[in-house]
Amino acid sequence: MSKFKKALLGSIAPLLLGSMLGMATQAVASDERFYGRFTADNELYTPRDYRTWVFIGASVTPNDMNDGAAAFPEFHNVYLDPGSYAHWKKTGEFRSGSVIVKELVSVGTKEAPSGNGYFPGEYGGIAAMVKNDKRYPDRPGNWAYFGFDGESRHGAIQEDSACSACHQQNAADDQVFTQFYPVLRAAKP
Amino acid sequence: MSKFKKALLGSIAPLLLGSMLGMATQAVASDERFYGRFTADNELYTPRDYRTWVFIGASVTPNDMNDGAAAFPEFHNVYLDPGSYAHWKKTGEFRSGSVIVKELVSVGTKEAPSGNGYFPGEYGGIAAMVKNDKRYPDRPGNWAYFGFDGESRHGAIQEDSACSACHQQNAADDQVFTQFYPVLRAAKP
Repeated sequence: MSKFKKALLGSIAPLLLGSMLGMATQAVASDERFYGRFTADNELYTPRDYRTWVFIGASVTPNDMNDGAAAFPEFHNVYLDPGSYAHWKKTGEFRSGSVIVKELVSVGTKEAPSGNGYFPGEYGGIAAMVKNDKRYPDRPGNWAYFGFDGESRHGAIQEDSACSACHQQNAADDQVFTQFYPVLRAAKP
Repeated sequence: MSKFKKALLGSIAPLLLGSMLGMATQAVASDERFYGRFTADNELYTPRDYRTWVFIGASVTPNDMNDGAAAFPEFHNVYLDPGSYAHWKKTGEFRSGSVIVKELVSVGTKEAPSGNGYFPGEYGGIAAMVKNDKRYPDRPGNWAYFGFDGESRHGAIQEDSACSACHQQNAADDQVFTQFYPVLRAAKP
């Protein structure tokens, strides 16, 4: 190898190594990166990408099983942001920064080739809960609950007496209904 | 800038550019990378990571709505691998390489604070379908259907008269029940 090539390799090697280390760091960081964007008033901008987050469970509370007036018709498909799922798998806790989105989907049909039951129809809106000790230091458990009204660009924080009260009283783990989320139970260390 | 530095930069620049292009290619490739591992007989090794894939829909066909003997009790939560979801978003088609996993989850309870309904209980097994024109050239639509028996390391391909016949006859789009998957309908270009 020529003296020049050796000198050149000596100069390039640290750069390439640095670049490779940078890539590794980036990969780890993106695994636990934070999700959700917020207004100056700490209201959550309407999440658009949650369907590629981690699905944690689906329940159905159909109108026809609730005297025609279910509180949350019909399917609720629930997602946790990927960074907070990675954190849950390591620690079994919801980190500050956790974003959980509940998507409501109508019942499309009750009969299908696979049998009688409830089958998803069309998208009907979302709700969300966000845990953040900096943004919501005075909310119970630092969880804020958001309703989203039609085409609004961001959610509105709900009174503690609305969502939070029921979640505090009935949810199995830090206001999250893990009793209905086998995915989270299976991932808990 | 010294003559030496100029010469050095001239030598490094193509390498760094090549490295950056390599990273860009890798990013695109990982977005559409292929999922699933296969035996020499083209049988799918039991998928372990599907809960971080893209959830496309959940139906419930409970025993108590099917004379105590539902064909697919109880919830079926269905996932599509991320690379094939990315491809679907671009083309509206299931590429060769698509892997769809159906997870069965028991009904845990029919009563909860949110109302009467069906709520997930415990994991009960999986089934899968894989589209691949190289591995399954003679299967209808190149889809192979897999059953997984308890702790088996890989799935067993099912006869066409089993899963495939019903999917061919009833599923809305290339043997996939997109009529029950609002996530896929919304993402179709």
